[in-house]
Amino acid sequence: MDHHRIPPNTHVDLSKIESRYTGETSKKEGQAQLKKFRKELIDLQELLFAENKRQLLIVLQGIDTSGKDGTIRHVFGDVNPQGTRVVNFKVPTRHDLAHDYLWRVHQHTPAKGEIVIFNRSHYEDVLVVRVHNLVPNTVWSKRYLHINEFERLLADEGAIILKFLLHISKRTQAERFLARLDRPDKNWKFNPDDLEERKHWQDYQAAFEAMLSQTSTPWAPWYVIPSDRKWYRNLAVASVIVETLKGLDMQFPTAVPDIESYRGKLEAILADDPT
Amino acid sequence: MDHHRIPPNTHVDLSKIESRYTGETSKKEGQAQLKKFRKELIDLQELLFAENKRQLLIVLQGIDTSGKDGTIRHVFGDVNPQGTRVVNFKVPTRHDLAHDYLWRVHQHTPAKGEIVIFNRSHYEDVLVVRVHNLVPNTVWSKRYLHINEFERLLADEGAIILKFLLHISKRTQAERFLARLDRPDKNWKFNPDDLEERKHWQDYQAAFEAMLSQTSTPWAPWYVIPSDRKWYRNLAVASVIVETLKGLDMQFPTAVPDIESYRGKLEAILADDPT
Repeated sequence: MDHHRIPPNTHVDLSKIESRYTGETSKKEGQAQLKKFRKELIDLQELLFAENKRQLLIVLQGIDTSGKDGTIRHVFGDVNPQGTRVVNFKVPTRHDLAHDYLWRVHQHTPAKGEIVIFNRSHYEDVLVVRVHNLVPNTVWSKRYLHINEFERLLADEGAIILKFLLHISKRTQAERFLARLDRPDKNWKFNPDDLEERKHWQDYQAAFEAMLSQTSTPWAPWYVIPSDRKWYRNLAVASVIVETLKGLDMQFPTAVPDIESYRGKLEAILADDPT
Repeated sequence: MDHHRIPPNTHVDLSKIESRYTGETSKKEGQAQLKKFRKELIDLQELLFAENKRQLLIVLQGIDTSGKDGTIRHVFGDVNPQGTRVVNFKVPTRHDLAHDYLWRVHQHTPAKGEIVIFNRSHYEDVLVVRVHNLVPNTVWSKRYLHINEFERLLADEGAIILKFLLHISKRTQAERFLARLDRPDKNWKFNPDDLEERKHWQDYQAAFEAMLSQTSTPWAPWYVIPSDRKWYRNLAVASVIVETLKGLDMQFPTAVPDIESYRGKLEAILADDPT
């Protein structure tokens, strides 16, 4: 899956990246592979938690309907919620805005042993903020460096960081909005404001490109995931996460010395206990 | 007071900095000046709070007995505690240690309008941690860069940062420990462990020098304050803070439009109210 990874300091042109891409895999094969990855992820998360040495931070970004929620459900649906947290970054509060923009984000970074998934993230501060001029260019343009250095800190202190941009076509977005009208159980997700936001499509693509070009680093790489096909999107994200965790060569902590010597004691306790 | 400021990328040798220095000022003159600075600080803090645009972070570091607590009391004794906070960084908890070392620090950074004084700080992670090898050299040596970039973030997002190292001689420390034995109301401050820590004096001086040499930046300068004379220490710290705040050219927010038009309404309310 390494060909979805953006090398550091690369100029990215999203219009050149095929959002319908599904590689050589058929949908059926892909779904079987995802099932296998989901099982592996259960064990890998347990190992990460037990070892308690590293922390995993996953950043999910993408335009409305790109499938951030669906990716979380389909990739992490089976992992133990003890040790796995999803953090949603909504519109910042007044209290948030009284501090630097990484202040609220830093508080939610994973502890050792934890997996934390950012559903939207600090990257909003160079995306929506840039598109809508919420702060001047002189302010947001400095943030790419801040963010790289913030992520370097986390990585130097033990974090594994994986960042995914879910990449869809403009037509796919319209189809998915329409699907929200068609299905009564999805009506609640439809917001007319989203159609207003869609008018800024090109500005968002430009902001995504700047983000990818400037903040894909050796310690916190971006992956651009073709996401018009939901099954491929889930497969690609799961694959990167599973392969990365496997590469850590994690070990269960060593048992207490002479663990067998406790067997006799425990058997005696059970023998004494008539209930 | 600019001659106490360490220029960026300067090799600092603390043994060349006179800890008994008091400049041209007599103690009596210095105490009168401090009184004036304290009054000015009351007004400047109110203005910072009212303007609500910038935040002030003050970092105090120094070896045991160098006078961090005394400096806070004597410089900030008169300012409004609403809008001024002192944060003491003690030994990190297990929960703190499960995160990167700036995690707990970032939470306490000042909001807009606030003054926050760090009594010890993130610099302990390149001081006590380095002196006692609490993490390997490969880990702490990366922290100078993290800290510079963390402070750059805060500064780019509006913070004024002033950092003070309170510099005393080894003999002064011994005299001040002895004073804690002499005065019954100071006995509680005496801890025999402090004498153990004193054995690492030279290691601390080296760690201070590395810190000063590597983390005095245009956006977060270090000042080395000669602190054998308490009156001079207070005066020097107060002077830097007051001059810096004056230099911000802060303004009270503009009043509501046509504020005089409310005079009639308020007078009518009072006229109607018989009590």
